[in-house]
Amino acid sequence: MSAGWFRRRFLPGVAGGPLPAPRSPRPRASPVPYRRPRFLRGSGSCPGTPDAPRRPDARPVRCPARGRTLPWNAGYAEIINAEKSEFNEDQAACGKLCIRRCEFGPEEDQEWLTLCPEEFLTGHYWALFDGHGGPAAAILAANTLHSCLRRQLEAIGEGMVATQPPMHLSGCCVCPSDPQFVEEKGIRTEDLVIGALESAFQECDEVIGRELEAAGQVGGCTALVAVSLKGKLYVANAGDSRAILVRRDEVRPLSSEFTPESERQRIQQLAFVYPELLADEFTRLEFPRRLKGDDLGQKVLFRDHYMSGWSYKCVEKSDLKYPLIHGQGRQARLLGTLAVSRGLGDHQLRVLDTNIQLKPFLLSVPQVTVLDLDQLELQEEDVVVMATDGLWDVLSNEQVARLVRSFLPGNREDPHRFSELAQMLIHSTQGKDGNPTEEGQVSYDDVSVFVIPLYSQSQGSSGH
Amino acid sequence: MSAGWFRRRFLPGVAGGPLPAPRSPRPRASPVPYRRPRFLRGSGSCPGTPDAPRRPDARPVRCPARGRTLPWNAGYAEIINAEKSEFNEDQAACGKLCIRRCEFGPEEDQEWLTLCPEEFLTGHYWALFDGHGGPAAAILAANTLHSCLRRQLEAIGEGMVATQPPMHLSGCCVCPSDPQFVEEKGIRTEDLVIGALESAFQECDEVIGRELEAAGQVGGCTALVAVSLKGKLYVANAGDSRAILVRRDEVRPLSSEFTPESERQRIQQLAFVYPELLADEFTRLEFPRRLKGDDLGQKVLFRDHYMSGWSYKCVEKSDLKYPLIHGQGRQARLLGTLAVSRGLGDHQLRVLDTNIQLKPFLLSVPQVTVLDLDQLELQEEDVVVMATDGLWDVLSNEQVARLVRSFLPGNREDPHRFSELAQMLIHSTQGKDGNPTEEGQVSYDDVSVFVIPLYSQSQGSSGH
Repeated sequence: MSAGWFRRRFLPGVAGGPLPAPRSPRPRASPVPYRRPRFLRGSGSCPGTPDAPRRPDARPVRCPARGRTLPWNAGYAEIINAEKSEFNEDQAACGKLCIRRCEFGPEEDQEWLTLCPEEFLTGHYWALFDGHGGPAAAILAANTLHSCLRRQLEAIGEGMVATQPPMHLSGCCVCPSDPQFVEEKGIRTEDLVIGALESAFQECDEVIGRELEAAGQVGGCTALVAVSLKGKLYVANAGDSRAILVRRDEVRPLSSEFTPESERQRIQQLAFVYPELLADEFTRLEFPRRLKGDDLGQKVLFRDHYMSGWSYKCVEKSDLKYPLIHGQGRQARLLGTLAVSRGLGDHQLRVLDTNIQLKPFLLSVPQVTVLDLDQLELQEEDVVVMATDGLWDVLSNEQVARLVRSFLPGNREDPHRFSELAQMLIHSTQGKDGNPTEEGQVSYDDVSVFVIPLYSQSQGSSGH
Repeated sequence: MSAGWFRRRFLPGVAGGPLPAPRSPRPRASPVPYRRPRFLRGSGSCPGTPDAPRRPDARPVRCPARGRTLPWNAGYAEIINAEKSEFNEDQAACGKLCIRRCEFGPEEDQEWLTLCPEEFLTGHYWALFDGHGGPAAAILAANTLHSCLRRQLEAIGEGMVATQPPMHLSGCCVCPSDPQFVEEKGIRTEDLVIGALESAFQECDEVIGRELEAAGQVGGCTALVAVSLKGKLYVANAGDSRAILVRRDEVRPLSSEFTPESERQRIQQLAFVYPELLADEFTRLEFPRRLKGDDLGQKVLFRDHYMSGWSYKCVEKSDLKYPLIHGQGRQARLLGTLAVSRGLGDHQLRVLDTNIQLKPFLLSVPQVTVLDLDQLELQEEDVVVMATDGLWDVLSNEQVARLVRSFLPGNREDPHRFSELAQMLIHSTQGKDGNPTEEGQVSYDDVSVFVIPLYSQSQGSSGH
């Protein structure tokens, strides 16, 4: 796949058709072995010790900003392993989202596409995918998810333009009280977009599973998506990337991270219900550290699936097994393997040298946050910053906000200021541009950043 | 059981010993048939049509305020079915919580209790239980939960008085870095109290299950508990009662309601994992209304376990089954039967005329909120209002706050003002005292209210 291919499939006004299968000939022709599971992050990207070959052909969507205008003149920048490797597990995609009226069955789709090219509704789409176990899943996601989303939105198109979603998509009224039932449930148009995003992530995950299996490849990725549609910005997140809103007097998180720690209770609960998923090799209980023989018979701190708090239990032999979730903060791992608990792919991922699968513990469904742009009274320097964890590992929300606020006012006349801001944020993670992080930390991970200006959108350039 | 029995088991300074089994001879001698499941709420309490016999013997903890001083001179009031019935499914308990040092094994407990009566730590306890299917579970909970909590707290007593909970309760140090592991996990003393509350609710639920089965009785209850300990107020909630903090300039919810609607995704997820729980009689999907034959083949609004948003699906025959969660707001029911999704008891509860159990869908574990009283800069009129759903059905948080703020300043010299405020709140749900609800609504449910003043506690009367 090349950047040109990406552009063909996703140029403004040219939304992709049905997904071709297979759709990623290059990764298939040169399969990416499962070399760099996420628990090796950092170690593989130390200077001089890249543990993966340079694969320039595996970077089809390397920089969506190059050579074309981003939606709303947004800024984009990326860096690969602190520029110490060509191997990129971060992928990005963005473009205009063209939703067409869809009144016919799938068998007529192709003909209809030719005959009725008019756009019904347009929006904009930005997406970041942070791969692990190679870039294959992230590349597939960057080339697929927008098509899944477009298809999901087209399937509910009529419902989305109504003041209130109708009970029946056909518009027929089986029961006179139907509008009242919908009203009482509080179902709004934005709930349809949220549902479409949730279904699109699920669909894309299935596509990735099929594609990787057919190609004999492995890997997974996180997914962070922003969609602007009808005056609202939807941020959908599955993984540990992050989006924040930065305004003059406000920094607002638009996503939450989904990690083994943040989803501990869900994951422990699943292991409680299905103990066979742990194959007698792991304990589902959480302890402050891994227990050892000397702890046997002692009362130690622990917590189980139903607990937010902590208690003490008398240590038995089974408690000495490796913990289902182990480690702290950025080091926390699910089954000793994975640092995230939501994302796409990983259908084949197993604990090293075992048959224990990780996929049952992972969710592909995102959490969706809605920002009502019309309610915000936007100012010229209000932006959304989306970035993969490489940025947030070394910069806090407040630090990013300070960098945004110090950069934008002095560069008002620069038409590329949002791209330059994205570049500057990237460089700050490398200790460049005189903007090192406060703790002097440097990121050795891939880092990708979108800076999305909101003001121009609120001035009527939304296309809806 | 009588009020006297309650006092014996729970007078200040006289915490209960090990739970006797069986512990509720009267309910056992006069079993409460499963007559009033929660889905009949309201209908059974209409004037002149009580559907349950008068059972004055089933009200052992009828009014904890009568004849004794409540902790912190808190106020309590209750009303039974708008005074139209003697049948009370609400139960309450409160008192001093005396936690003793527990360094010996269980076999020495009795001897130790005699030899070392000193209190190690004292707190205070308030609890409301709203029963359904009769008062049996609520009575058991009112007589049991505080003992479970005391036992859980005594089991971790040493950990609770340390600045930081030790990895090992014995104080031994297996690994020199243990304090650092505990520190990195962010485990604080309050997490031990939260854990103790969670475990106490679980333990109490098991006791209720055993007791009711042995007595051939049925029923369940919600549980809302407030505990003050070492300068913090812990509010633990499982069900649809509610606690709020009311200050001069602030109204803060201290609990969330757990209903089939608020826990929809968890409940649908369980039915997805275990479809056999629905016995082919229910559909786990949610629709705005129950579908009928005319909807077949139409695309209608729906959502599944993984969705926060809504989408459309083509209606199949299986979608016409009764929904797992059906109805709206106060009318929403789990399996057509129960209005709450967390609580104690209900081990035997089944869908009418079927073998479909509700218990697998219910959680007994509470959500715990912590209020740091030392951080609050409390004023004389700052209170916590705890009440069963009978109050909140007709009064909003803001309405209750207005009543509190209008009542307390004018009654500063009255030593019983918090009890009178509780009475006034109850009367407001009945359209009495010239304080009807704004919408003129009247509650026909049992209503119980605690008003807990916080100021005196912060002035050093906490006993810790």
